[in-house]
Amino acid sequence: MSLLVVGSVALDSVYTPFGETADALGGSAVYFSVAGSLLAPVRVVGVIGEDYPVHELEALSSRGIDWSGVERAAGESFRWKGKYSYDLQSRETLETRLGVFAAFNPRLPDSHRDAEYVFLGNIDPVLQMGVLDQVRSPKLTVCDTMNYWIQGKRKELLALLERVDILMVNDSEARELSGDWNIHRAARWILERGPKRVVIKQGEYGALLMEPGRAFYAPAFPLEEVFDPTGAGDAFAGGFMAYLARTGETSPEAMRRAMVYGATMGSFAVAGFGIRGFDQIRLADVLHRVREFAELTHVPMAERIE
Amino acid sequence: MSLLVVGSVALDSVYTPFGETADALGGSAVYFSVAGSLLAPVRVVGVIGEDYPVHELEALSSRGIDWSGVERAAGESFRWKGKYSYDLQSRETLETRLGVFAAFNPRLPDSHRDAEYVFLGNIDPVLQMGVLDQVRSPKLTVCDTMNYWIQGKRKELLALLERVDILMVNDSEARELSGDWNIHRAARWILERGPKRVVIKQGEYGALLMEPGRAFYAPAFPLEEVFDPTGAGDAFAGGFMAYLARTGETSPEAMRRAMVYGATMGSFAVAGFGIRGFDQIRLADVLHRVREFAELTHVPMAERIE
Repeated sequence: MSLLVVGSVALDSVYTPFGETADALGGSAVYFSVAGSLLAPVRVVGVIGEDYPVHELEALSSRGIDWSGVERAAGESFRWKGKYSYDLQSRETLETRLGVFAAFNPRLPDSHRDAEYVFLGNIDPVLQMGVLDQVRSPKLTVCDTMNYWIQGKRKELLALLERVDILMVNDSEARELSGDWNIHRAARWILERGPKRVVIKQGEYGALLMEPGRAFYAPAFPLEEVFDPTGAGDAFAGGFMAYLARTGETSPEAMRRAMVYGATMGSFAVAGFGIRGFDQIRLADVLHRVREFAELTHVPMAERIE
Repeated sequence: MSLLVVGSVALDSVYTPFGETADALGGSAVYFSVAGSLLAPVRVVGVIGEDYPVHELEALSSRGIDWSGVERAAGESFRWKGKYSYDLQSRETLETRLGVFAAFNPRLPDSHRDAEYVFLGNIDPVLQMGVLDQVRSPKLTVCDTMNYWIQGKRKELLALLERVDILMVNDSEARELSGDWNIHRAARWILERGPKRVVIKQGEYGALLMEPGRAFYAPAFPLEEVFDPTGAGDAFAGGFMAYLARTGETSPEAMRRAMVYGATMGSFAVAGFGIRGFDQIRLADVLHRVREFAELTHVPMAERIE
């Protein structure tokens, strides 16, 4: 089943207590596709500037990432520079240079318009809507967003929510969007605005899948070494979507399994700088960790006290 | 199987955005026993002053709480006054008046010395050790502590850790005790100092059970209405211990089930002010929520992609 991601292809400079990167491959579409391609081929739509190290993208093609939908535009690539606190609990954006990303207007190659699993990375909701208009008959649409759009393009974002199957955001975004600090009420508020499901990412704690009247929690994998949280949420999205694309599933049970594959990819993402956490990961490693995840929350309830 | 808790029996004045209480029944031993008694009889050892509303304790006796080990001393009862932030994420202690609790030196009635399941609430580790010396042959000992003792009685606390089966603390306490901000490394550090298991409570996110080489995560129950987080951790401990006491279990599988019973009790505690959250709760309600918990993390993995 074909999987499409539309989002940023950026160059990240990240400072953590354990090291730093400069102009390393980053952006939501890169993290998404590097994680997702462990499970299913991924088509990327994005934009890069003239200065982007294209050979580094091309080196990832053999994993099953199709970059043919990434446009090369005149100007500089999108750059983000950030610094994490000593405990990785918070980060500060030092610099954002949008470059060619400022004028990004996703145009899907005709070959990409039959995509069945579509992930709308965090871009202007007007552009996200434009992508939906270009896709012929998607089986599952999932979108991300951020505080910038929640504040600046609220009406457009709410219109988009009426057309997507799942909103996937972090807890602060869910709170800001709904105006409610209780995460479960916030999720219900969102569900009443269109999406059939909401996935709320809670960083080091895990992620919540909310459906009407039902919740599922995938904790974060217990890691003694976390090097760089950048991209964990996008890697989660990549694992989530690629599991569904690989199996051709959209059932409620499959959604739960997809959450575990998402959390698995998030755990690989944070274990290395940039996308390096995925360097040594193969499908067998993914499946091994998925089994460990099942163990992490398995409650042997045979001996109930009723 | 006999269950004993040693801890504070206090009068709490709590301010939350949703209301306030004044001199309401509180303290670790009260929350522990009100929660635990839904599953198993609980014996309490503590101290109250001359001003304590004894009739309110006595009204709880019919639930299966034995207060005969609570000493009445000359002076004022332990009082705590605290205020929560608008989102209940943080709280400020406005006043602590130890009263008779300052001179508390737990003396177990002879009838209590055969206790098999022993919970050492957050008191001076020297006194916690004194309780262990009075118990004949406990089957499972669990202790709590707090930053005050971690800083002021570190040596005594480390000596205690060599003698207890489980340390049950919140994440900030685990971090301070170990000197490591990574919660999983912090847990390993603690495991290397004696306890066979560590339970790390993470408030609204849930709780982690760490054993050597194995972890289990019980998320917090998704609640749209949280009124007062006070006592949630002690109610968790009460559910955890009382499940084990009721079933006579200490197996690794039973520990996981106990975590779910603990999380269940925590979810009742926060749904009302003080111990009011338990007013309408019966065993059937506990079992119902335990089943909902199992659903919350159940991953139907039948269709693996291997």
